[in-house]
Amino acid sequence: MPPPPAVDIDVGAEAVDDNSPSTTPAYLTVLGVDELRANSVFSGGIAAVGLSDAFKSKTNGKKPTSKDFTYRLTLESRSRQPSPLKQAAQYLSRKGMISLGGGLPSSAYFPFDHVSVGVPRGDLFSESDIHKYAHNVTIGKHDMKEGTSAYDLSVALNYGQGTGSPQMVRWVTEHTEIVHNPLYQNWACVMTVGSTSAFEMCLRSFCNRGDYFIADEYAFCSAVEAGRGLGINAVGIRMDSEGMIPSHLDEVLTNWDEKAREAKKPFLIYLVPTGQNPTGSTQGTQRRKDIYALAQKHDLIVIEDEPYYFLQMDKYVSPSAGSNNGSNNGNSTPAPKTIDEFLASLTPSYLSMDIDGRVIRLDSFSKVIAPGSRCGWLTTSSKICERLMRHNEVTVQAPSGFSQAILFKLLDEHWGHGKYLDWLVHIRKEYTLRRNTMLEACEKYIPREVASWTPPAAGMFLWFRVKSERHPAFGRKNMLEMEHEIFEAVIDQKTLLAKGSWFFAEPEGDHPDVYLRATFAAAEEGAMVEGIKRFGNALRISFGLPAFTETA
Amino acid sequence: MPPPPAVDIDVGAEAVDDNSPSTTPAYLTVLGVDELRANSVFSGGIAAVGLSDAFKSKTNGKKPTSKDFTYRLTLESRSRQPSPLKQAAQYLSRKGMISLGGGLPSSAYFPFDHVSVGVPRGDLFSESDIHKYAHNVTIGKHDMKEGTSAYDLSVALNYGQGTGSPQMVRWVTEHTEIVHNPLYQNWACVMTVGSTSAFEMCLRSFCNRGDYFIADEYAFCSAVEAGRGLGINAVGIRMDSEGMIPSHLDEVLTNWDEKAREAKKPFLIYLVPTGQNPTGSTQGTQRRKDIYALAQKHDLIVIEDEPYYFLQMDKYVSPSAGSNNGSNNGNSTPAPKTIDEFLASLTPSYLSMDIDGRVIRLDSFSKVIAPGSRCGWLTTSSKICERLMRHNEVTVQAPSGFSQAILFKLLDEHWGHGKYLDWLVHIRKEYTLRRNTMLEACEKYIPREVASWTPPAAGMFLWFRVKSERHPAFGRKNMLEMEHEIFEAVIDQKTLLAKGSWFFAEPEGDHPDVYLRATFAAAEEGAMVEGIKRFGNALRISFGLPAFTETA
Repeated sequence: MPPPPAVDIDVGAEAVDDNSPSTTPAYLTVLGVDELRANSVFSGGIAAVGLSDAFKSKTNGKKPTSKDFTYRLTLESRSRQPSPLKQAAQYLSRKGMISLGGGLPSSAYFPFDHVSVGVPRGDLFSESDIHKYAHNVTIGKHDMKEGTSAYDLSVALNYGQGTGSPQMVRWVTEHTEIVHNPLYQNWACVMTVGSTSAFEMCLRSFCNRGDYFIADEYAFCSAVEAGRGLGINAVGIRMDSEGMIPSHLDEVLTNWDEKAREAKKPFLIYLVPTGQNPTGSTQGTQRRKDIYALAQKHDLIVIEDEPYYFLQMDKYVSPSAGSNNGSNNGNSTPAPKTIDEFLASLTPSYLSMDIDGRVIRLDSFSKVIAPGSRCGWLTTSSKICERLMRHNEVTVQAPSGFSQAILFKLLDEHWGHGKYLDWLVHIRKEYTLRRNTMLEACEKYIPREVASWTPPAAGMFLWFRVKSERHPAFGRKNMLEMEHEIFEAVIDQKTLLAKGSWFFAEPEGDHPDVYLRATFAAAEEGAMVEGIKRFGNALRISFGLPAFTETA
Repeated sequence: MPPPPAVDIDVGAEAVDDNSPSTTPAYLTVLGVDELRANSVFSGGIAAVGLSDAFKSKTNGKKPTSKDFTYRLTLESRSRQPSPLKQAAQYLSRKGMISLGGGLPSSAYFPFDHVSVGVPRGDLFSESDIHKYAHNVTIGKHDMKEGTSAYDLSVALNYGQGTGSPQMVRWVTEHTEIVHNPLYQNWACVMTVGSTSAFEMCLRSFCNRGDYFIADEYAFCSAVEAGRGLGINAVGIRMDSEGMIPSHLDEVLTNWDEKAREAKKPFLIYLVPTGQNPTGSTQGTQRRKDIYALAQKHDLIVIEDEPYYFLQMDKYVSPSAGSNNGSNNGNSTPAPKTIDEFLASLTPSYLSMDIDGRVIRLDSFSKVIAPGSRCGWLTTSSKICERLMRHNEVTVQAPSGFSQAILFKLLDEHWGHGKYLDWLVHIRKEYTLRRNTMLEACEKYIPREVASWTPPAAGMFLWFRVKSERHPAFGRKNMLEMEHEIFEAVIDQKTLLAKGSWFFAEPEGDHPDVYLRATFAAAEEGAMVEGIKRFGNALRISFGLPAFTETA
């Protein structure tokens, strides 16, 4: 968590104009949200407009404005016109107006009276506790009319604006300010139907067929695949244990030969800075600063896709390295005890260091709430947000109203920002335990002479380099053939891993090494250990090593 | 409802190979679904694959195969590759396989124990009855493991396939077969996040920048707007009270001059055949046959966007025309009494007459369940479905799991196909009452000397032609100026209508007439009548007519 910028700012509605000491921190905190809301007007009726500006704290007013990156937009993005029907909504605020205008169905015909959801009670976050002690939150059809809630089914299940509902825009705007506190004043959030869709929107908004975008040499395959359909291929930048290597990024961009490449110098860079998929690598603070400096040097737009941002873990300490009893499940370094400690422990985001407004941050509930919510948001300068919102209008429109209403009920009314951060601390701890279990199994079962790995500092993935140069078939088979042989050997042991080649940013590029990806996200603890044991067996068989014995 | 094709077909698992009479109808009916399901295997686990072929009745096997329209696909659509991660799911069916492959989070970390929804009990369909007697359906986290349901939150809230969940694909496939019984065997359904998104997918799959698509001269503005961003403009075909005029469609296509237009002859035609937005027009059966014949003649792909298909109403009979007591709310012609009568009363869809496989039907729950579900489906030949499913994979992925689970619980487990059709009969009746209320108000309050309208046979919209040639400003002001003056006059009376110009397929085209659109979908009955009264007053003021008096 970066410190707030050293400028004279105030918070909420309370101006701090003198130099007297104040107990109110000079940036938005979890505790400041109530005051912020108390001093603003909220309107969230059917298809109501709700832009982030209505929900940001006043501290933002004293920040500089961002640069304008609309000159980077494609013809497609620039061509979009506001929907006349959505614009007509302006007339509806006039007193006494009867609308026979928009074709919004009457909520009387929604066959749902209420939606009730069992969610965690207090700090009882384990699955069995949620089941046993579930707290029911209920979304009624007409709660707003009855004054019992700021959101209800009659609104959530009708059409909405391309920004998403004001109820959710407010929540994500506050959350984004609390966690990232952007450095410029004109930032905004727009709801998305998930970051896969959001990234594809960005590709179409900034690149044309024949252009390239920049990615890690091993990259999230849906991002690469989304580009392929659009004829926008990825340029892969070499990676180390902290992800993208800045010197190689600089080299590729500095030496870009438009004629040889038959393409313009790329300016869109796609990053998963934390717990990268598939390598599990996490960029440290300095790495991010270095890449951001290069983004400024080469005038890049940075897509920061951060589904695993809150799954940052304690440093892994191997049980064999210490004097403990062999199980270090989560106890290797102290976990954060408070929200402030937790936020302070997070590697700063690109958004938090973006003075120019060149970062588009993609957030998602998929890895911290549930993928099936198909709901996330993006954060960038308001002019770019406006274009992406227009894109939403004629495509997905907005996230599901069921998703928005249920998330609102849980995140805003039931949890609030503080308890949500508590939940993230819980999830972080659970994934840390899972990571440790898998790493301990690896140390026990994987023959180090033929495979290596780096303990991930975040996310869900463990990335194995298989030392194919030691494989009996080395020299006779090419890299893809050896990868397939080893992958099939693991399948024969009834375990499924992901092939490194599935993640090539440049399928035609030069890839001397064999990699396999394992996830510690899903399998039960016992199955996870057994899976790693089988992987170890597969390697022993494939490389002709002696079988594993418990005393080995 | 078209009769089933006259070929030797059987139903479900029961082959009818002899000529003996059978009581089983030779096509899938509501009552045949149980038997169909009893004779097939259903698998609906996490990210399970579920294609329509698994859910269609055996009658389909004896139908001819469709033509192959993949040659019409754009480079974008043809370039999409299957996701390697989704393909890897094939290994998971092997017994004993442990997956460390896909990065699917564990459902243990979804903070939801159950979702409970209050839905209609029996035939108690009114909003007050649903509130008073709500039946609660509950979706648990692990209902599948416990054997109590075919779907649960642990599956619905995880990642899924680009087709949507097998649970929903099964339901929409059965529904589509019951209602439309496609003529060729290789049809399939893919879930969408709504028809706005589905249409944009179709545009991108069949047209390139600079191409045209064909539409009604007044067309759904989001469809036109979606095309604008893509550089795919609409060609507007003239309309009458039954929508698109076939002779003009034929004329435009036959005389298409690629050089003069600087564009290829268009082949994608966008239609809202039932209760068209904005004109409210409904194509009769012969009109559809004529347009389909032209689609064959000119080798068109037909996008049939049918959100209002089930809102087909009884013929309107003006109370002043008959001998009844002045209120004909829904009683003008007998409403269908049974599901069979209802289905038989529906104008046949393009899908039902499509022997070639050139129709892509878009269905939506927005107008019959709730827009906020952001869930619909499309139906066409399986090869085109496969391409659109790939498109889903790298963009929206699938509809919200909350939406899919709640719809499944309501439509499949609680209602089943029959009760859903009962609900549609109910909704149809409600909209018929609303339409009649608005039409009666029009007859009372709108001065016929300056405005005319045709009672809509379906949908939500009433389309007024304002006789601008009788306006005092006629000749001095152009059409758009007069339209704006009249629109503002209605706003001054505190009523919002939609301008006809918002729906121009070709904004630059020649539009001599002024139109305004009203909807009877949303406002309360009293407000609707008051709104029409105000509209009448606005016309009287704007045209300089005497004020309305009750005795007039």
